[in-house]
Amino acid sequence: MYDDMVIDDIDPILGSEFVIELVRHLRALDSYGAYEKWSNARLVDPLIMTRERKQEMPITADPDDVTLSNIRAYYSALAILIEKQCGHMCSPFISISHEGFGRVLITVGKLVVMDKVLRDAHLFGFPSLEKLKLESDRILTQAQAMVSCYPTVAAI
Amino acid sequence: MYDDMVIDDIDPILGSEFVIELVRHLRALDSYGAYEKWSNARLVDPLIMTRERKQEMPITADPDDVTLSNIRAYYSALAILIEKQCGHMCSPFISISHEGFGRVLITVGKLVVMDKVLRDAHLFGFPSLEKLKLESDRILTQAQAMVSCYPTVAAI
Repeated sequence: MYDDMVIDDIDPILGSEFVIELVRHLRALDSYGAYEKWSNARLVDPLIMTRERKQEMPITADPDDVTLSNIRAYYSALAILIEKQCGHMCSPFISISHEGFGRVLITVGKLVVMDKVLRDAHLFGFPSLEKLKLESDRILTQAQAMVSCYPTVAAI
Repeated sequence: MYDDMVIDDIDPILGSEFVIELVRHLRALDSYGAYEKWSNARLVDPLIMTRERKQEMPITADPDDVTLSNIRAYYSALAILIEKQCGHMCSPFISISHEGFGRVLITVGKLVVMDKVLRDAHLFGFPSLEKLKLESDRILTQAQAMVSCYPTVAAI
């Protein structure tokens, strides 16, 4: 997607539980095996939106299919890890308009554990792989705290 | 939309709180005023899917824009009444694929008060105006029960 990759193939964060799950989802959405020979680092790379990359993008634009698919993979991976964490079925609900405006919800039982408004989906990404992991960990911790606070609602 | 209307212009259910709200939403989504001169009965009429109407429809088909817009109006009206009932902000979340498969969520705070999978959206509708009202009342009662059961989650 970008000419220069910003993720190193030997970055240890690629071996973290979240990134492994993310890669599984990215590969699952690749129905035609177009990325079959890509390394994990190359697959995750488009999710990194450095300042330099952002500057090359238009301020407003419609997100392309690959970006939408990456967003789906990212939130689905989060939902799976939340499910593993709390042991209840978890479902992500992603709705993005063709203009790149939308909302993502993750529910556990009848409890909303994540609710995020997406703007400028064409600019979706994280400043670095480390930031991607930190942000995901933050959401996972928050979701777990919600489930611990309201276990009955999560179990409905 | 259909040649013969099944709703009577003087049907008292047209004066019920839910149908009045539904009509407001149907009119709000009519950006170009195409239905400006239509009676309320005629506006709501396409939401009635009698057995005869169903028989005239194909079994599988993509829902057209008017049907999608009617579905949106229906669930938005429900969300507004739930909001009135419980006094908390309420948001509907409607996601339907172009093939007519999707999901509708209504949340109050962090509580999911309605969660419905939509199939065959092109056949969306109720057997009669009475059934439309009964079904809406059932959802409203259920939502209210959920909010009363978990007031803290609804208030987040």
